Amino acid sequence: MDIKQFVYEKALRAKEASRRLMNVSTEKKNSCLLTMAELIKKEKDLLIKENKKDVETANLKGLSSALIDRLTLNEKRINEICAGLMEVAQLPDPVFEITKMWRRPNGMLVGRMRTPIGLIGIIYEARPNVTVDATSLCLKSGNAVILRGGSEAINSNRALVNIMRKALNDNGIPEDAVTFIDIPEREAVMEMLKLSDLIDLIIPRGGEGLIRTVAENSRIPVLKHYKGVCHVFVDREADLRTAEEICFNAKVQRPGTCNAMETMLVDEAIAERFLPVMLKRFEDAGVELKGCEKTRKIYPSVKPVKEEDYFNEYLALILNVRVVKDIDEAMEHIARYGSKHSDAIVTENYEKAMRFLREVDSSAVFVNASTRLNDGYQFGLGAEIGISTDKLHARGPMGLEELTCTKFIVLGSGQLRQ
Amino acid sequence: MDIKQFVYEKALRAKEASRRLMNVSTEKKNSCLLTMAELIKKEKDLLIKENKKDVETANLKGLSSALIDRLTLNEKRINEICAGLMEVAQLPDPVFEITKMWRRPNGMLVGRMRTPIGLIGIIYEARPNVTVDATSLCLKSGNAVILRGGSEAINSNRALVNIMRKALNDNGIPEDAVTFIDIPEREAVMEMLKLSDLIDLIIPRGGEGLIRTVAENSRIPVLKHYKGVCHVFVDREADLRTAEEICFNAKVQRPGTCNAMETMLVDEAIAERFLPVMLKRFEDAGVELKGCEKTRKIYPSVKPVKEEDYFNEYLALILNVRVVKDIDEAMEHIARYGSKHSDAIVTENYEKAMRFLREVDSSAVFVNASTRLNDGYQFGLGAEIGISTDKLHARGPMGLEELTCTKFIVLGSGQLRQ
Repeated sequence: MDIKQFVYEKALRAKEASRRLMNVSTEKKNSCLLTMAELIKKEKDLLIKENKKDVETANLKGLSSALIDRLTLNEKRINEICAGLMEVAQLPDPVFEITKMWRRPNGMLVGRMRTPIGLIGIIYEARPNVTVDATSLCLKSGNAVILRGGSEAINSNRALVNIMRKALNDNGIPEDAVTFIDIPEREAVMEMLKLSDLIDLIIPRGGEGLIRTVAENSRIPVLKHYKGVCHVFVDREADLRTAEEICFNAKVQRPGTCNAMETMLVDEAIAERFLPVMLKRFEDAGVELKGCEKTRKIYPSVKPVKEEDYFNEYLALILNVRVVKDIDEAMEHIARYGSKHSDAIVTENYEKAMRFLREVDSSAVFVNASTRLNDGYQFGLGAEIGISTDKLHARGPMGLEELTCTKFIVLGSGQLRQ
Repeated sequence: MDIKQFVYEKALRAKEASRRLMNVSTEKKNSCLLTMAELIKKEKDLLIKENKKDVETANLKGLSSALIDRLTLNEKRINEICAGLMEVAQLPDPVFEITKMWRRPNGMLVGRMRTPIGLIGIIYEARPNVTVDATSLCLKSGNAVILRGGSEAINSNRALVNIMRKALNDNGIPEDAVTFIDIPEREAVMEMLKLSDLIDLIIPRGGEGLIRTVAENSRIPVLKHYKGVCHVFVDREADLRTAEEICFNAKVQRPGTCNAMETMLVDEAIAERFLPVMLKRFEDAGVELKGCEKTRKIYPSVKPVKEEDYFNEYLALILNVRVVKDIDEAMEHIARYGSKHSDAIVTENYEKAMRFLREVDSSAVFVNASTRLNDGYQFGLGAEIGISTDKLHARGPMGLEELTCTKFIVLGSGQLRQ
């Protein structure tokens, strides 16, 4: 088989479908999402059977148990997938929203109207739920989607896509609006990434390796999510009880996530009061602590931190602790070692709160709240397709609006250029 | 000289300056823009002298007179450059604007705050005015800029940059916020395009060849402007007098621009009434006409159009004319042959106006107004740095807001992730 030609033809048909999808009514899109949920529920035995093939192959290949866990579909997960579809059906449709409109001196009205982006490529790893989650968000925002999941999940993904395409068909929407690259060859990804005339946007979902490969090889714009090296700075004017709760939540509530705290920065003026209580609580929760010299003077059981540790995204119960002179040293640390993801200050001082908000250049900046709240649901955007650490187009949680672009519209009465 | 190292070090210093520029006050930035205008006016003799060197070299190389005209600086052009600087000083500063803020059920306020993008690379051809125009917009929006102008203008650009850096210095802003790659080697551009860790955005300004080269070689996001193949569709329910004025303006007012009309689409129901008057007027204005069979039946002096003509951006007094069955055939034509730049419908029918607005996928869509109005000034955005034909981040005229990104800000009172 000619892989290049195969991918090109799939993308071409998906692009054609995207033109028709652009103008499909909200009612029809919602009805299609609900049909998808119904059909997936109805076909759960088939899905579990197809998924078993993938899981068996993964076992034979000796893949890690964490990976096999992410790959596995069971009744509970299928119910979650269906709940997600129903939730996206409830969200407001961003397409054709006019976000602003103004009148010019010559009498014409100029406005900005949201429209779908077109055809979105999703490249992801071995989580079959992404197949449905990503599709539902693309569909609701009027975009066709071309899916390339990990080869480990190929049978599960193929079955899910077939069901979703049937739902499209049942609702009179072109089924190529959901297109799946159902060959395992890695070359297929590379061919996808060249199709800048057909695919408008690539969103990679997965580990840093996958994301870097996609970013480095794509001729198509990429919205990506690199690592989260997140900080909480406890200012000398913090309410220490609040600081303790926020730091504990930011580290311990779910350490394997991108918005969990990796380094805690503590103002030297309160370090002696704050650290013993805080670090004890971390130790009791099983957090491995690495600290700077000053931290270790105050709390000697902490291991010494190396400079390179400050760049680390542990994704685990490990924490760097550093005592800093003041807010300036804290912000310098964040600028130098952080990944511009999620950073917080705990303070009761108004001016320092405002400075931190302005000067820290991260996708989300918090005053007196946990970094773990950087999330589409928490922010009220509804479902999200990822958290962008890019600056262009979308930064932070990406919801339905981030899957649209805007065009200018002009309502005139014969206006000419003078 | 090691070009790679040279470009890297320049970009590194510019990036450091960008971090400090981010927080410079609006007053200081405006004062700096005014100082730039003053110093440029004061040094106009030096500028004209340096520019003469470039013009002489260009003459010796036998460059086209159009190019030499674009390259030349005279007192009038220098005054225009200074007027541009003063105008940008008057525009509102987008940095730290909070575009939206809302309250979540847990009591925290979530908002979006505009911030500078960081370091912007501008790659352009032989127009020294771009050196100042682009710099002023980047500076006002809090971004550092790294400039790479055409080698034909190197002496003019170097002189302009030196003056602008002096103005930065006089106002206490790091002078590396305006950085110029002052070597003519083409390799320098290729090195710039690799520095995705330092440069946040590339904006190419110039002909299609330059823009394609930049887009194809950049590892950094690019905001670009490809050709404008723009249409006006005259519907059967148009006011024909309005249609005539709009079509004439769209083609003739300034044919060498990207938002000028290249193809006029005429509804067959009114073609016999509309075309004779309209085409006579075009002929009288010296427009070369190419038409479809139906057009030529109605107005035989029109030359036959070939299919490939419909893809052409003439940038000249040449026009394709096609008679179409109805709005659907018109929109199909635009989708097939257009470049998603600027397209207009002339109609008095409300439903067709609304359909055209929604369904035509272009950076600006007009009802009863000339495509020539697709422009930052005309839309009320103030100065523009180009018209994006991309969909992500910015689409259509790019003003100061398009040179910013947004981050999420959260004002909490101890909120945690549950």
